[in-house]
Amino acid sequence: MELFINTLKGIKPLNEEAKNKAKERLDNLIKPLGSLGRLEDIAIQISGITGEINNKFYKKCNIIMAADNGVWEEGVSSCPQSITAMQTLNFTKGLAAINVLSRHASMDVRIVDIGVNSDINNPLVIDRKIRKGTWNMSKGKAMTRDEAIKAIEVGIEVVKKLVEDGYSILGTGEMGICNTATSSAIVMSFTGCSSEIAVGKGAGLTEDGYINKKNTIEKAIEINKPDSKDPLDVLSKVGGFDIAGLVGCYIGAAYYRVPIIIDGFISAAAALVAYKLNPLTRNFMVPSHYSKEPGFKIIMDELNLSPIFNLDMRLGEGTGCPLAFNIIEASTKIISEMATFEEVALRDDYLIDIR
Amino acid sequence: MELFINTLKGIKPLNEEAKNKAKERLDNLIKPLGSLGRLEDIAIQISGITGEINNKFYKKCNIIMAADNGVWEEGVSSCPQSITAMQTLNFTKGLAAINVLSRHASMDVRIVDIGVNSDINNPLVIDRKIRKGTWNMSKGKAMTRDEAIKAIEVGIEVVKKLVEDGYSILGTGEMGICNTATSSAIVMSFTGCSSEIAVGKGAGLTEDGYINKKNTIEKAIEINKPDSKDPLDVLSKVGGFDIAGLVGCYIGAAYYRVPIIIDGFISAAAALVAYKLNPLTRNFMVPSHYSKEPGFKIIMDELNLSPIFNLDMRLGEGTGCPLAFNIIEASTKIISEMATFEEVALRDDYLIDIR
Repeated sequence: MELFINTLKGIKPLNEEAKNKAKERLDNLIKPLGSLGRLEDIAIQISGITGEINNKFYKKCNIIMAADNGVWEEGVSSCPQSITAMQTLNFTKGLAAINVLSRHASMDVRIVDIGVNSDINNPLVIDRKIRKGTWNMSKGKAMTRDEAIKAIEVGIEVVKKLVEDGYSILGTGEMGICNTATSSAIVMSFTGCSSEIAVGKGAGLTEDGYINKKNTIEKAIEINKPDSKDPLDVLSKVGGFDIAGLVGCYIGAAYYRVPIIIDGFISAAAALVAYKLNPLTRNFMVPSHYSKEPGFKIIMDELNLSPIFNLDMRLGEGTGCPLAFNIIEASTKIISEMATFEEVALRDDYLIDIR
Repeated sequence: MELFINTLKGIKPLNEEAKNKAKERLDNLIKPLGSLGRLEDIAIQISGITGEINNKFYKKCNIIMAADNGVWEEGVSSCPQSITAMQTLNFTKGLAAINVLSRHASMDVRIVDIGVNSDINNPLVIDRKIRKGTWNMSKGKAMTRDEAIKAIEVGIEVVKKLVEDGYSILGTGEMGICNTATSSAIVMSFTGCSSEIAVGKGAGLTEDGYINKKNTIEKAIEINKPDSKDPLDVLSKVGGFDIAGLVGCYIGAAYYRVPIIIDGFISAAAALVAYKLNPLTRNFMVPSHYSKEPGFKIIMDELNLSPIFNLDMRLGEGTGCPLAFNIIEASTKIISEMATFEEVALRDDYLIDIR
């Protein structure tokens, strides 16, 4: 509880002086003013986060929070619940999409069992299990308020350890059958929007399954009556341990001042909860791709964020993060490696053989 | 002439068998069907281009076609014409945006002087100058039909040499003051759309400058009456040497079966001309970002292509290409490095230490 409160209250705004200095340098580079668009915006944001004009990410990590959801028993997913454990183990083998894309971006992967409904027992999975899956949110709250805070603190502690180990940029992934259902419930709780626009077909529901999913989520909200003014109430009643853990990651990243990349719908739902807990967290987030899940856009509008990619992805695991990392890294190289009009005039030599 | 005709006629369709095999493998990977969206589409396209399921790009290159445009004397740009030569030389110093982003993606850069209005005399710039800038298109044709073909052949030859040297993916960049004006004129010529929707402010025109630019382009079309059914007529009357060179690059890439990335508005205008000359060229193109120039979207609609990035960029030089290359490379790794459900079941070892 104390860790949660202190970390949440300890978040500071972006460094405006560093942002201004970054903008000044960008405006003097050999290109039309502002012509690199969002590459420039991202470079300025990173400077605001770190306080430095020149930034280099030596160690980077994608965090995967894995957990099960009790609402699975209502048939809101096309997958057996065991997929959560199976895929959590697949991550340790380096063969899943997030492994491939993380290697591609030279990012490491940390897998956290924060509530998988089976014994994982694998040295490559960090065991921080709160409980073997949440309760069925369509019959009552998914978890207690204390559990929600505990799960958030897991996220904060994972980030703290990574930062101590030298990681300076993070991605947010998850694995948990039914977590598009909990994410939709969170979106509906905060915005009051209908299931019609906040619920999608997840990994691949039939039309009947889709109707059942919408009804189940509506029931969860009706029974729990989550208080949109109280983010912990929303999170504990209709969220999941995976989402709560990621909320902690966003809070931790903001506190420790490292950029944190949003992946898809579930990761974005966690970002929304973090933002509702402390709006300053938003300044440390970088969106990646437009998820195909319909509720995703609602969250981006709430956060006033606009993703970089149109890739029609809907996999989760954090798969958008290593792709976005490449763009973020490119933005930091623009500010560090491009010349200003003044600098280029002074250099007549062929600095780099571009052949 | 012969090179142009033979190359254009020699383009073959994508390899459907390889595409099918790639799709089959993607459908069996450990993820929900189709959940990696356009990463999967791109992997399939690359297989269709190369005929292989597993693809790796060892050498990759961004080509920059640099040329001046006679229409500059009408005041349609906010920049002095000398910027073309200056920036062409800056590329050789490794200090411009395209240099930084190309290094970031481990891509090389080839700079071609295909019509800069000054003597470049630099060993890092390939001298294939057709002429010192085109004629003023608002007073008559920009170049002769023969010159257009000659410039296309330069592009084909540059690609041929790169492929012989082992390059297997290409980016398309350009440098040429006023080339948003020529690109808009090409869009208007092919589609019949108005200057209101096809013309933008380029590097940064004033409102008066913008009105003058629109009027000048309209005048160019009125005087030249380019025949939309005859792409060479459009290209020679209202195009530029840079665009014509890039048309050759697209044709060459399709002929030699290497993927070629579209950058922004000018690069896209060249893609449109290539597509009008032979629609098969489209299958070898990969779009990168949504240019801020308004005519860009019209071209994407004509080509039925949808860019990957929303980065609000409008710089040119090929700057979108190295960013898109990262995504293309990621897509090829997905198909090669992810496991199928069958494969993962057979592997109990920790293949890769993901910590």
